[in-house]
Amino acid sequence: MIDLKLREERFVVVYRLTGAKEDAAAMASDICLEDTVELPYDLVTEGLIRDHIIGRVEDLRPVADGVFEARVSFAVETTAFEFTQFLNVAFGNVSLKPGIRVERFELPDSLLQIFRGPRFGVEGWRRRLGVPKRPLLCSALKPMGLSAAECAELAGKLASGGIDLIKDDHGLTDQPFARFEERAVLCAKAVKKSNEQTGLNCIYMPNVTAAPEEMLRRARMAREIGTGGLLVAPGLTGYDAMRRLADDDAVALPIMAHPSFQGSFVTNRSCGFSHGAIFGQLARLGGADATIFPNYGGRFSFTREECGRIVEFSRMPMGRISPIFPTPGGGMSLDRVSEMSRLYGNDVIYLIGAGLLRYSADLPNACRMFRRMAESSASADPANDGG
Amino acid sequence: MIDLKLREERFVVVYRLTGAKEDAAAMASDICLEDTVELPYDLVTEGLIRDHIIGRVEDLRPVADGVFEARVSFAVETTAFEFTQFLNVAFGNVSLKPGIRVERFELPDSLLQIFRGPRFGVEGWRRRLGVPKRPLLCSALKPMGLSAAECAELAGKLASGGIDLIKDDHGLTDQPFARFEERAVLCAKAVKKSNEQTGLNCIYMPNVTAAPEEMLRRARMAREIGTGGLLVAPGLTGYDAMRRLADDDAVALPIMAHPSFQGSFVTNRSCGFSHGAIFGQLARLGGADATIFPNYGGRFSFTREECGRIVEFSRMPMGRISPIFPTPGGGMSLDRVSEMSRLYGNDVIYLIGAGLLRYSADLPNACRMFRRMAESSASADPANDGG
Repeated sequence: MIDLKLREERFVVVYRLTGAKEDAAAMASDICLEDTVELPYDLVTEGLIRDHIIGRVEDLRPVADGVFEARVSFAVETTAFEFTQFLNVAFGNVSLKPGIRVERFELPDSLLQIFRGPRFGVEGWRRRLGVPKRPLLCSALKPMGLSAAECAELAGKLASGGIDLIKDDHGLTDQPFARFEERAVLCAKAVKKSNEQTGLNCIYMPNVTAAPEEMLRRARMAREIGTGGLLVAPGLTGYDAMRRLADDDAVALPIMAHPSFQGSFVTNRSCGFSHGAIFGQLARLGGADATIFPNYGGRFSFTREECGRIVEFSRMPMGRISPIFPTPGGGMSLDRVSEMSRLYGNDVIYLIGAGLLRYSADLPNACRMFRRMAESSASADPANDGG
Repeated sequence: MIDLKLREERFVVVYRLTGAKEDAAAMASDICLEDTVELPYDLVTEGLIRDHIIGRVEDLRPVADGVFEARVSFAVETTAFEFTQFLNVAFGNVSLKPGIRVERFELPDSLLQIFRGPRFGVEGWRRRLGVPKRPLLCSALKPMGLSAAECAELAGKLASGGIDLIKDDHGLTDQPFARFEERAVLCAKAVKKSNEQTGLNCIYMPNVTAAPEEMLRRARMAREIGTGGLLVAPGLTGYDAMRRLADDDAVALPIMAHPSFQGSFVTNRSCGFSHGAIFGQLARLGGADATIFPNYGGRFSFTREECGRIVEFSRMPMGRISPIFPTPGGGMSLDRVSEMSRLYGNDVIYLIGAGLLRYSADLPNACRMFRRMAESSASADPANDGG
């Protein structure tokens, strides 16, 4: 007889089930089997496996017409204390069945201890930037097709106008017209030069999204070059690759996560993840210090409520895992800052790309306007109704 | 003025658009901008960027009521000849917008040359196994919770019954009750011993899905131990991590891809990928030699037509990228083999887990029955209507 040596500790995945009332219980039971033993219940004869390895429906209740919420617990050992296997237990095979969505994770300390989480988080990053309270401002270098020198020129202008964080557009990687290394060197230099003139503390964040080893190489290079942070799209690289960077002491830079390639997890309410679970909880477990998502009312389809949930999940207590910055972007314009501040409060990074570049005739001035609006909206209304 | 040095070569992504007729053209144009310049068209003033970097709608036509097909081409240089950035151009930000699905990729040689693709493919793997024509048989070690010794005992029984490929269940990683190394050593040994007795050439394929560096370490260990193949879930690891294994000369083992975590890309027809694009084309680009997917009529929701498209895309010409084995599984039972052979033909791997384990009283005999059914169905009806 095997000796499972289980800790008797379990984590919970809360699922949203869409289906008929008579099917809900069967769907929940099916989840318990599908990502653990992958066998019909009658074939699981082993007492300990039946009793401990299979998921357990802790609660099942209707939340709307044809919608149910199931709290399913799993033994922490099923994850092998690995990120990939944690995702597999929570939403591996189950992802292939219609009508099942992950609403949120409830993780005990034993599981959270395997995740270092964000190296900086809201507090650490603010300390590093010397900005204790106001919203942070971020813009992007674009369009793809600019040379490295043109990117650097743009970076210099944005920095001189008081932007805090300048990131590569996430589509800039190592194209022949603006190689990674040349772009990173020139942009870091342009931002440094601007900082010397303004006395500000702007940082440049190159996009290091690439194959795992190449990503690590670029991140370490970025650190040596003197950039102040990194952009990663975990949907393209896998979450563990992002976490690898966050945990790397030779990199040790703040990371901003980009939602590229992850849309299919959220565009349909009956499958995938809740906005908070993926852009809040998974981003934090993956070591991101800020999480970009499409702002409501922009050119994407996220609602104000969905964005509010990302804010909530970016900040909710998660053991040792720090809160991170929600970073709404995607079609933001300057005139929306005041209204947005009511949802996002002060601990937010406002990401404006095209909305600033539109003022190319006097970009530094547009940046200063952006900063004034963010500062005044923050002090005028520090309350946050997004939680 | 920058010198783009473009090759004037473009690749095509065919999108399925769901929406009103009056919106289709705008959706297609939007795709052209969203994953390249990420700017409104009026802000892209640069002639070369406008002319070459932005995607181009090559064709747009209705295919059903409220459904359109758009062929959009992109300059190969936009991908930086990187897998992650290729995925980003094809379905990065665009994934975040409702009503857009990737139907298929049409890639020119210059882009295909960056992908080595499957190291073995159908022909190479058949040569290695010494099985020139008949369908291959695969089963899985389960349930999670078995000890390494129990896994090995099961592997020995399956091997002695004539199963060709024995894989770990994809949820077996490095759990405390069956550590990766111990399991791989014992299972490889049990299969080797059985082969010595039967004269057959069964192989054991451990699941190496893990964080990138750990996955590479386990894959190399698996090779040294003498296992004959690997199981990887690219949805959990990222496609590049799987490709890294396929390209590694110190590993050099056939790879079977598992669809875990990828369901949200296909469960809704209006977003994500077509079944053929993700489980056929992307699996091949990622270096898989076989692609597991849920069989129609089993406990998942794939239709016969969707499975047929995976077969088609697993075999269609793609430059130097070899055809791979479609591997239907998930609730398969022995009595379905004959019917399934009409869709899958001979170049298929039949994956039966629970359907075999149900016969635990005499597993080797059930395996022999499975093999006879597959062999006779193949010779009786070699035609394949799945293409």
